[in-house]
Formats: sequence, C-alpha cells, structure tokens
Amino acid sequence: MRPRVAVLGAGPSGLAQLRAFQSAAQKGAEIPEIVCFEKQDDWGGLWNYTWRTGLDQYGEPVHGSMYRYLWSNGPKEGLEFADYTFEEHFGRPIASYPPRSVLFDYIKGRVEKANVRKWIRFRNVVRHVTYDDGSGKFMVTVKDHDLDEEYTEAFDYVVVATGHFSTPNVPEFEGFDSFNGRVLHAHDFRDALEFKDKNILIIGTSYSAEDIGSQCWKYGCKSVTVSHRTAPMGFDWPDNWKEVPLLQKVDRNTATFKDGTTAEVDAIILCTGYLHFFPFMAENLKLKTNNRLYPVHLYNGVVWTANPKLFYLGMQDQWFTFNMFDAQAWYARDIMLGRLDVPVSKYDMEKDIAHWREVEDNLADDYGAIDFQGEYTRRLIDLTDYPSFDINGAKEAFYQWKKHKKKNIMTFRDNGYKSVMTGTMAPVHHTLWKDALDDSLESYLQTEAAE
Amino acid sequence: MRPRVAVLGAGPSGLAQLRAFQSAAQKGAEIPEIVCFEKQDDWGGLWNYTWRTGLDQYGEPVHGSMYRYLWSNGPKEGLEFADYTFEEHFGRPIASYPPRSVLFDYIKGRVEKANVRKWIRFRNVVRHVTYDDGSGKFMVTVKDHDLDEEYTEAFDYVVVATGHFSTPNVPEFEGFDSFNGRVLHAHDFRDALEFKDKNILIIGTSYSAEDIGSQCWKYGCKSVTVSHRTAPMGFDWPDNWKEVPLLQKVDRNTATFKDGTTAEVDAIILCTGYLHFFPFMAENLKLKTNNRLYPVHLYNGVVWTANPKLFYLGMQDQWFTFNMFDAQAWYARDIMLGRLDVPVSKYDMEKDIAHWREVEDNLADDYGAIDFQGEYTRRLIDLTDYPSFDINGAKEAFYQWKKHKKKNIMTFRDNGYKSVMTGTMAPVHHTLWKDALDDSLESYLQTEAAE
Repeated sequence: MRPRVAVLGAGPSGLAQLRAFQSAAQKGAEIPEIVCFEKQDDWGGLWNYTWRTGLDQYGEPVHGSMYRYLWSNGPKEGLEFADYTFEEHFGRPIASYPPRSVLFDYIKGRVEKANVRKWIRFRNVVRHVTYDDGSGKFMVTVKDHDLDEEYTEAFDYVVVATGHFSTPNVPEFEGFDSFNGRVLHAHDFRDALEFKDKNILIIGTSYSAEDIGSQCWKYGCKSVTVSHRTAPMGFDWPDNWKEVPLLQKVDRNTATFKDGTTAEVDAIILCTGYLHFFPFMAENLKLKTNNRLYPVHLYNGVVWTANPKLFYLGMQDQWFTFNMFDAQAWYARDIMLGRLDVPVSKYDMEKDIAHWREVEDNLADDYGAIDFQGEYTRRLIDLTDYPSFDINGAKEAFYQWKKHKKKNIMTFRDNGYKSVMTGTMAPVHHTLWKDALDDSLESYLQTEAAE
Repeated sequence: MRPRVAVLGAGPSGLAQLRAFQSAAQKGAEIPEIVCFEKQDDWGGLWNYTWRTGLDQYGEPVHGSMYRYLWSNGPKEGLEFADYTFEEHFGRPIASYPPRSVLFDYIKGRVEKANVRKWIRFRNVVRHVTYDDGSGKFMVTVKDHDLDEEYTEAFDYVVVATGHFSTPNVPEFEGFDSFNGRVLHAHDFRDALEFKDKNILIIGTSYSAEDIGSQCWKYGCKSVTVSHRTAPMGFDWPDNWKEVPLLQKVDRNTATFKDGTTAEVDAIILCTGYLHFFPFMAENLKLKTNNRLYPVHLYNGVVWTANPKLFYLGMQDQWFTFNMFDAQAWYARDIMLGRLDVPVSKYDMEKDIAHWREVEDNLADDYGAIDFQGEYTRRLIDLTDYPSFDINGAKEAFYQWKKHKKKNIMTFRDNGYKSVMTGTMAPVHHTLWKDALDDSLESYLQTEAAE
C-alpha cells in the first residue's frame, strides 16, 4: 500500500505541496498517493477572485478576501518561484507589481505544466481531522458538495494549507449597532466603486488599511480617515486623507476618536487582521497562534511537534510568500519521503522553536524581520533539491520596496526591480499605477521589455 | 443517572424546549438534565439583533439575519404563546405588528420567568454530533469560545433547534463579478439608510423581498426594482417601485431582464431564501430538505425516523411560528419523558409522513397552507398539556392579514386583530407604520389600549 497524503487547500501553499511531490516523481521517486481537498470551484486560493462575501453557494464561509483592482503590494521579485520564473511563464520580462489576474495566471501556469489538477477534489470541504492512535492514521471527514454527502478517509500524513487570511478578526466599537451605513471587514471588501464620493473610515494600519484606503482614493472616494490604535502609518498621504487616533464610538454617522476629534463618515472598513482558524482540526492537532514569524509548536515552522506526520504550511506572518511556501513544501515532502528526519524528541524540537522565537522577539525593525525570514527560507532550501537562489537579492528587493513606499505611497508601484532568478531588470509599466484603471492581464502585458 | 438532553440553539424553538421541560418540572415531573448550546452571546436566536455580517468575532458564521427597523410582518395574534400572553408580559394590550425589540422582549419574558438561562452555555458552538450504537448515546463535540477549547459530551437525546433562516441561498447571475456596487443577500442586510437615494435591485419575491423593499422605500431609497423568476408579487406598490422578469445579466451598473428591459442600479439585494444547513450533524442524522410544510423523515414534523431519540424543531416553512414551536417542543418533551410513544416501525412513521406530504402537495393556495399548518399544530397540542387555544381564531388572523396586505401593502401593519388567548382586541398603533421611524420598545408601548 502506498502511503496517502491529504493536502488541505489548493492555494499557493497547497499547490506548492503538489508541485513538490510531482517534481520528485518526475525525477524518478516513488511518491505517496496525494489527495488535495479544495472548498472552492477552482484552485489559486485567495488569488481566485469571487464577488461573494459571507457564506458561499454551499453555505460555507467564503475563503476569498481578494478585491477587485488589486495590484501586488510587494515586488514580484520577492515572491518569484525558483523553479518557474515569470519570464518562463510570460515569455518575456514583465513589470514588478502585477495586478491579481497576472499573478493568478502565473500561479496556475506552474501547476498546469506539472499536471497536478487531477489530485484535487474541488467543492470538497474538510469537516474534521482526527488522529487514530490504534492505526496510526489520520481520519479525514469531508463534505462533497457535488454529491451532497460526507465521507471519511484514512491518511498517513496531513498537510494543512488553508491559509490564514480568510477568517476576519472583527472587533466591536460603541455605537456600531446604530451606525447608519455599512460596517464591513476588509475580508468583505470587493469593489472600491461602492465607496465613490463617500467618506470612509478605516480602522487599522495593516496592509489592508494601506491598500484599501489607496484603492478607494484611486477610485474616487471623497475622503479617507484612518484610525490607529498605537501609531499612524505615517506615509505622505494625499490631501483628502488623514490619520487619527483610535475610534472611541460612533453615533449615527459621527465618529469620535480618542483625541476628541470627530468625523462624519458614510462607511466603516475594519482592517483589523485575520484569525488563524482551524475549526476542522481536532483539539490535539489544532494550531493556535497569532500572526508572527515563528508560530508555536511548528518545528522548522512546518512540522507539528506533537505529531510529526502533520504539517502546516504558510502559517507565518509573511514577507516572503510563494518561494517560502515552496521551501516549506519541499521540506515537508522530504520528511514524508523519508529523505529527512526530525528530532525524535518533541522536547528538542520545542527547544529549537523557542530559540527562533527568542531571536524573533529581539528583532529591531522590519529590516530585521525581512532578514530573519530570508534566512529561515534559506535554511529550508538548503535541506532539499528546491533550486537555490539569491536570497540576499530577494531581501534587497524588499528593502528597496520599503524605501520606495516611504518616498511616495502612491507611486511605489511604478518602480522596477531585478529578478534574482533570471537577472533581468523589470521593465517600467506603461502607465502609472494611480492612473491604471484597467487591471486586466491583457493591459498589463502591453508593457515592453526594458532595452 | 438522569438522562441528558442536548438542545442545539437558544432561539424561539430551543427556548420553547427549555420552557417545556421547566413547565413539566414545575408540575412535579422528574426531568432530564438539560444542556442548551448557543453560539451567540445572548438568547433569542434571530431576534437577537447584531450589526455583524459574514463571520462573527469568533470566526463563526453570523446567525443573525435580522435588520434594523424590522416590524413583524405578520400579526402577533398568530404567534402568541398560549402559556404566556402579550398582555401578561406587557401588562396591557399592545398593537398587532410589533417591532423587533418588542417581540424580543416578549420572548425573553417567558424564559426569564421560567428561570432557564442557567441551562444555556453561551458562545458554545456545536461542531459535530454522532450517534454511538454501542452505548446508545449521542456524542456531541462543542467549541467553547470562552475557553478556546473543544470538548465532547454524551447525551441520550438531541434536539436540533438551530433554525433555517441563517444560511443564505446565494445564486449567481452573469456579470456579478464586475458589478460596480454591493451585491448582498438579505441575510447581510442591516440598515436601510445605507441605500438612501439609491436605486436598488431586489431578486426574489419572498417575505424578505417584500419587506426589505418596503424598508428601503420607507427610509428613502430612490427606486425599487424587484425581479421575479415565475410571477410578480402583484401588490399595489408605490410609484418608484416596479416588478420585472428575471435578471439575465448585469454589466457594470446596468441590469438586463428577461423581457429585454434594463435598469440602472446601485446595489443588488438577493432575497433568494435560505438553506437548511446542518454541517455539524453526522450524515446519518442530517436533515436534508427544502423549505416546505412537511419535511422528509420527521414524524409528526419533529421526530427523526431513523433514530427517534433525535428531534428537529421548527424546520417547517412557517405561517405559525412561536406557538407551533411550543406545540413541537411539548410533544418532543413528552416523548423524552416516556409519556408518549412513536410507532416502533420506521416504515409506519414514514408512511404517515408520506400521507401528510401528499396532502400538502395538493393544497390549493395559501389559505389551504395556513389551514394545513393550523391543523398540524392542533394535532400536536392535543397530545400534550400545552394550553389549548382557539386555532381557528389564529387562522382567521392570518386570513385577515393576507387580505389587508392585498388591500395595501404599505398600510397592512396599521390594522389590529383579536387575541385568541385573551379575547382582547389589539389597539391601533399611535403612528402609521410608514411614518413610524422610531422602532424602539419605548415608542411602541406609548399606544393606549382600545376602549
């Protein structure tokens, strides 16, 4: 009997796991039977846009937090796959901050080439995962929405790759129950044109706050007020944009902030982050963490120490993304293939984790965090046959990106960076981001390569 | 060992079950240990208003479909508890179409008096329910959000009272992914003022369509367009309201209907009904039904034929509500107390169900449906000590209500009816519904009793 691996989710992390196994098979390895469970109709995870919010057509929580007109908020040179470059996919260099459709196309390109779609069961939602000590197997119960039936199958390994940007963290403020407009979380934000000519209040200083505010500004909202708990984002914002202290209360359409100032607002968008939420995992298998670079109980950021046949991918706070997920997937694969071991002692694994968490706790700033995650990714890559690449170069792209944002938050996407995979310098896009209202793939690819 | 009963949900049906047991205990009966699991912070089910939509503060799907300014869309004389009248609760007669806060107060009044809140575990979400043939018990796994932990307990009986107006049925139409405004289901509708001065498109002809459209009209939307699949609602609508055939597609803000006509719309509200959705019930315990007067596999509309220790309350399409839930809860209680039996043979139960479904299928119209459900309620009441009442009188209130709606959809709430419990004629409310913008309990209770 071939061992069986359950991969939960067919987003960037889950697809990395499928590609990792397919890559080993291509090189002649015997690989386990892989079954990937995906709740959506298509692969791509968050990159698979849906207009739906709340609950989907099957009554399941909508996975997507993606909104229309989204352009990458970090340079593609920091996330490029080492085994499948943008140039290979598009046949030529492209600019550095692609819109969603372009990144979605790129993610799909690799797994289409790898021919792994046959491993995925779409519209299959994992209901609960338990571990049976007797048989040494995981029992995975799944709802198949095509058949409208639940079934249970046994697996030797489970890889949780369901992401952590789908379950919103939704705080309450006084007066929300009598506010005369829409109160929504970033998770449910879809189209900035809904907020055209409106005064919007954003709570939070996350990437969502920065980007949704910028979107609303770009698509013609009347004003943006951003309320922060600890510190303002501090970018050089446009004139109709202001940063204020934490919201105290709302009374009909009047918002009052901690410094006593007020603002009349038409809609409130909570950019207050996401929860790590795994209701389908049994208590003894469930990751409980906040959003940080080194979560608890995951050896090398991946292996569940209490049961090293269980893996969590991509559960870190993220600077690196696609290529870090790859590093993790190749590493998890090699453990499942018996090529790599983890310490026999859970104590030793936890001690190693504690060490890295302490290092994380002492990082001075974002530059330190980028460095930390770059080195983490490098350590994993060095353990497997995932193509090595110039991680220092990728880190450099992130450093540059941060400087460009600081210089001008509304123009940083007009910059280009050098691919650490191909050495090619990205061409400058044909239109400034603030003027580029067409976010289609066709429009984006009209940029000519740099000479 | 006392038997243990798990009641899932503390809305009108679940609370009816608690009151039914408390009533028996009050009269001297030995009753089982009752544990009621409620996902929300408070009791009342849908009547417990929340501004939240989508997922709640714990990552769980929001139960509430209630919106602000809701007034009962049916006469209170059709839903009055037989063991706790409106007059007993409020100390005097009140008008016939109370706003939400008044009905919520009334529901709470009975269970506060019964002192059953101690049986409820709030913020406890049932994850899965299985039946163990060996022990003959139900295993109920629950997430306690206060403790952030899952636990499992055994029960002799399970009563599912989680409702069926919380999981939206959300169809897709061509162009939704590029519509430049909000697309929402009625489940996520909260405040009509969000749609002030807007052109709204409503899909569907349900109570939600009728009432949300009326709300938006009352609170100043620019126009209401209601799209129907089979037939228009046909009421005498206001001038800025029209009914059109089924939506074919949207293109940016232009909606095109089946007859080729178009409308420019700012928001689309899907009033397309709800799903019976019980993801927490094991496959062999899970009710799968559409919304009808006599669902499958429920003997007397309540008892799960494949395992008569399992009960579903309130899963019918509803004319009667609170007092029908009471009839069901008292009936389920008496089976659990061993006072009543169900047929030993599942075949006999299914045959009985088939009979009533055939009768239902041959009902001529809504009047026939009201009569059918009234007689169903009467049959159950006759089996227990739930106070008998004039069901024909309640049916008459529904008939009158339908006529008043037909006469004028924007004034039907200005009528009053006679209580079948007390014989008192409801006073006329102090303000016409269309002018009554204050939906508070305090304002409502200013109406004086009829002389």
